[in-house]
Amino acid sequence: MKILILGAAGMLGRKLLARLAVEGLGGAAVTTAVLHDVVDPTPASQPFAVECQAGDYAAPGAAAALVAGRPAVIFHLASIVSGEAEARFEEGYRVNLDGTRALLEAIRALPDYRPRVVFASSLAVFGAPCPEVVDDDYLCAPSSSYGVQKAMVELLLADYSRRGFIDALALRLPTVCVRPGRPNAALSGFLSSIMREPLKGEEAVLPVEEAMRVWIASPRAAVSYLLHAASLDTGPLGARRSLNMPGVSVTVGEQIAALRARAGDRVAGLIRHAPDATVARVVGSWPQRFDAARARALGFVGDVDFAEILDAYIDEELGGRLPAL
Amino acid sequence: MKILILGAAGMLGRKLLARLAVEGLGGAAVTTAVLHDVVDPTPASQPFAVECQAGDYAAPGAAAALVAGRPAVIFHLASIVSGEAEARFEEGYRVNLDGTRALLEAIRALPDYRPRVVFASSLAVFGAPCPEVVDDDYLCAPSSSYGVQKAMVELLLADYSRRGFIDALALRLPTVCVRPGRPNAALSGFLSSIMREPLKGEEAVLPVEEAMRVWIASPRAAVSYLLHAASLDTGPLGARRSLNMPGVSVTVGEQIAALRARAGDRVAGLIRHAPDATVARVVGSWPQRFDAARARALGFVGDVDFAEILDAYIDEELGGRLPAL
Repeated sequence: MKILILGAAGMLGRKLLARLAVEGLGGAAVTTAVLHDVVDPTPASQPFAVECQAGDYAAPGAAAALVAGRPAVIFHLASIVSGEAEARFEEGYRVNLDGTRALLEAIRALPDYRPRVVFASSLAVFGAPCPEVVDDDYLCAPSSSYGVQKAMVELLLADYSRRGFIDALALRLPTVCVRPGRPNAALSGFLSSIMREPLKGEEAVLPVEEAMRVWIASPRAAVSYLLHAASLDTGPLGARRSLNMPGVSVTVGEQIAALRARAGDRVAGLIRHAPDATVARVVGSWPQRFDAARARALGFVGDVDFAEILDAYIDEELGGRLPAL
Repeated sequence: MKILILGAAGMLGRKLLARLAVEGLGGAAVTTAVLHDVVDPTPASQPFAVECQAGDYAAPGAAAALVAGRPAVIFHLASIVSGEAEARFEEGYRVNLDGTRALLEAIRALPDYRPRVVFASSLAVFGAPCPEVVDDDYLCAPSSSYGVQKAMVELLLADYSRRGFIDALALRLPTVCVRPGRPNAALSGFLSSIMREPLKGEEAVLPVEEAMRVWIASPRAAVSYLLHAASLDTGPLGARRSLNMPGVSVTVGEQIAALRARAGDRVAGLIRHAPDATVARVVGSWPQRFDAARARALGFVGDVDFAEILDAYIDEELGGRLPAL
């Protein structure tokens, strides 16, 4: 089976590739992976044939080249993140909306080709006011340009699926946390930073109140969702191709308490409050809890609680080591 | 006050212009109207200065020329209708989505310019399954490419408003009925035809079951919504710039019964059943009833019942005359 990963050098892309190497996809082995990102996405280990391309997937002609080999499954994880899409209006629309549309048009141009497309959407398609628990029928009314771009792509994916050009799922991922690596320009990035940096013995900035409640999923759960979506029977989905993914509802204060319980007062004490109105407004407008009934009925399984998420991060990313402070 | 009407030669555009001539706009007189459509939109009577342009508003450069005079209010009624957008995939996206985006970009390119934009959206942004009564928080999941294009434009209008580039409202109009004039390629066109053609003594085709329930508004009510939206205080709307408009919930059978009661058995007998699966699927997927609470709270007032709508059509469009059969 040939697959394509857009955004393959990103955190989720790399973890997805590692899982594909071990698990395959829906019972089949991956034989070739086309990997694309803005930076060179060549992985350290290559368990199957990989074709690596670095560049701008939204550039003219790029999408046609990417799908020319007719990958059976396309994981579309490429995106300008929320903070950058807010800061760079035109670039956000060009990459997040126009780039995806060019990809869909490149697929449509190929006769007798109807790939599974798994799109990393986001809970940012929602915006305030949201009910305490958001269900599967709730209105998408984004509070950021990023959320608007994701919601617009979701509409395209549904229409192109209905028309028979693709067979798509859009997964509205919770905020993925704890993300390893460097901070990115996502407005929700602090939710990882306030765990990751202290666990390296470094200071982290908290731009919101501790009472803020958020909906999160571990990197492992997020990758599991992508894999599950890639081989799911889409028949029961009908015309509605977007799914709210399971997650864990937790306050920032509860996250910090879990860090304190696991790693001690000194580690938790490395978090410094520095309010940021934009972050508070946008992240605070996202749903705090979902009833992800459709996704659960379709077999998507999430994390148990935040303590489990934190433990997994410390085990998988830090080899179980806590900082000596 | 200078205004721009896109789709000015259409049924709603012409009626809007006639009302503007009599009523002005929000207490101010219209001084200049730029009128645009694919066909020459020059009106028979011109109570104020009109600049008429025929062409493709989605063509490169067209939008910039249309907004160069900085109209204070833009009525955007131009659209490929639902049946045509379903039949002509690329053209639907080009005109309904890309054309509108070009318009918004042309506005954004002008410094210190933030016009009121009143957009004719549609209940086609919704799709099956819908609850019996759709409220203001219900998910947009269109069942047609037309509905997807309208929903995507709604998202753009909200984002451009939030960013301060425009001050927009998207009015999700019920199916407008009874439309005078010729049939168009809207999938809902039959709802007008089954009244209009028999009232001319001509046969009409009914492509759905009489039990189908629909949400309609008279042309007069639809124009009243556009006028009200043009001068409304948008402060209370916040980030959510789309509104479900009031309407009348009626079955096709009830419409026919009203026609029979008003115009007699022979007139009503001119309706011939000829099922059409696409029409039944798409129009049948639209909501049958709304709780248009937000719109009502903002002062939008609709029709009383279908008998009133039918009477108004016969009075206004037929001078009160019924066919002699």
